[in-house]
Amino acid sequence: MKTIKSVGEFGLIKLIARNAPQFSGVVKGVGDDAAVLEYSKTHYQLLTMDTIVEDVDFKKRGTDPALIGRKALAINLSDIAAMGGNPEAALVSLTLPKETPVSFVTRLYEGLRRLATEFEVSLVGGDISRGSKISITVMVLGQASKRHTVFRSGAGPGDVIGVTGALGGSILGHHFKFQPRVREGELLAKFQVSSMIDISDGLLQDLEHLMRSSKRCYTLDRNTIPISLAAKRLGRGNRAAALNHALCDGEDFELLFTVSPLKFESLKKEWKHTFATKLTRVGEVLKKKPAKQKHLASMPGFQHF
Amino acid sequence: MKTIKSVGEFGLIKLIARNAPQFSGVVKGVGDDAAVLEYSKTHYQLLTMDTIVEDVDFKKRGTDPALIGRKALAINLSDIAAMGGNPEAALVSLTLPKETPVSFVTRLYEGLRRLATEFEVSLVGGDISRGSKISITVMVLGQASKRHTVFRSGAGPGDVIGVTGALGGSILGHHFKFQPRVREGELLAKFQVSSMIDISDGLLQDLEHLMRSSKRCYTLDRNTIPISLAAKRLGRGNRAAALNHALCDGEDFELLFTVSPLKFESLKKEWKHTFATKLTRVGEVLKKKPAKQKHLASMPGFQHF
Repeated sequence: MKTIKSVGEFGLIKLIARNAPQFSGVVKGVGDDAAVLEYSKTHYQLLTMDTIVEDVDFKKRGTDPALIGRKALAINLSDIAAMGGNPEAALVSLTLPKETPVSFVTRLYEGLRRLATEFEVSLVGGDISRGSKISITVMVLGQASKRHTVFRSGAGPGDVIGVTGALGGSILGHHFKFQPRVREGELLAKFQVSSMIDISDGLLQDLEHLMRSSKRCYTLDRNTIPISLAAKRLGRGNRAAALNHALCDGEDFELLFTVSPLKFESLKKEWKHTFATKLTRVGEVLKKKPAKQKHLASMPGFQHF
Repeated sequence: MKTIKSVGEFGLIKLIARNAPQFSGVVKGVGDDAAVLEYSKTHYQLLTMDTIVEDVDFKKRGTDPALIGRKALAINLSDIAAMGGNPEAALVSLTLPKETPVSFVTRLYEGLRRLATEFEVSLVGGDISRGSKISITVMVLGQASKRHTVFRSGAGPGDVIGVTGALGGSILGHHFKFQPRVREGELLAKFQVSSMIDISDGLLQDLEHLMRSSKRCYTLDRNTIPISLAAKRLGRGNRAAALNHALCDGEDFELLFTVSPLKFESLKKEWKHTFATKLTRVGEVLKKKPAKQKHLASMPGFQHF
């Protein structure tokens, strides 16, 4: 019997996406950071939804519930950011064991609410269910101007591959405390980056997603990869080990994008005046089209099953 | 230590809703069947999200996975119906144990897809997570014309209380196979029903929600309650027991509404020509305002915790 562990997350998504019904108004369904629907003459609507589960994405014990609530929203804001969009409203579905303390729930919502307020996202509903483990699903609705919506599929030959922030070692705390790159994503979109994704499964794996969607090959300059302090700590003085964390660890939630070399230069200038976060050129999109697909399940990076 | 069992689902929602951030564009946040956002000059956008959990809402063993997938979508379509809206797109978040057979997932999606296609709802995304129990969260996006959006809060004195279909005993199969009353909800909205809700927690409890939102009292004519065959079977020939099932069982997913007596007469005529489903007058909204609130946790009906 074939289990989902054997086909993996991406195999499963492929199976599901194949026959997904699509009616008018759908610009992009499954396969990008967010679904894209027609909204107005000038704007698209963006939809994204993500779940975090106790003992998989977080431990209840020893974790401030506010961080759990914050994370459940932040990962969705990161998806909206990766489209160059602006988040507007969120729904929250909570599954809780019945013996959960009320104080746990109110604290969880405090974390959620604080981040929502920071990004001016309205919390407009959802539901509460009973279950044996805590699980939180957040859905975020956003908007993006049609001119500046960024898909995974637009990388062109010769484009610079760029990344925000520093990578790796998120397990030491960043995976709870990361700042969704919404403002950064908007600026990147304004400079017409040709493709974009947020790094949730690790730089290598998410770059593979980007290149596969764009049908391009790439070259990565391993000497330029911005390695986080956490990755260095995990590497214990061994640069190769630290680099490995930067390339393969999941949940960085930085933005990975491609952009023409000319636009990258002007982008860098404006970036410096606007953000303290780093912006690094890490590689280049090649002219060559990929010969055949590697099996993604064999890629390094976070495996969901 | 106060647990969520002690405050109940509604107490918890109240706690959460109190400080929910709301920015421009929100017409109605928490507290109705769906959230209502500004969309265009003529239309609102509706958002709803619901989760079903293994061993709480369904048993994996002995249940066709297609019915589980169908139900996860159907309960959300029912929420859109209760606003008088039309569903348009859905996102699906699946949590699965890693040993789940692929065939289970494809079958689950088959049920979901079939119902989506029937109501012309696009399946545009979502995510897959690992967890120890199966859990499915579906989010549905819909639209309703501003003129015909129905809230819980509009019941007026002298209004007829009406209900679609027959009630009770959904545990015998109806909770999986019910038809979301989307078309019916649209007709009810066209006849300007003054308030509406879908019956998910039982007639008595959901009528209480409706009357509380509308700040009204009601009288119910117990002789007119449409009792389903399933409720009669559970009652085993005892009419009082069958009526009790019709009044208190959850998951009927019929529409409960209020409407002026005049409009109810013209509605009934058009209804007969359009639907085979029953439409029944079960009570009346009183002039009297409620003196004080009964504690909802003490009401008969489905308790989530």
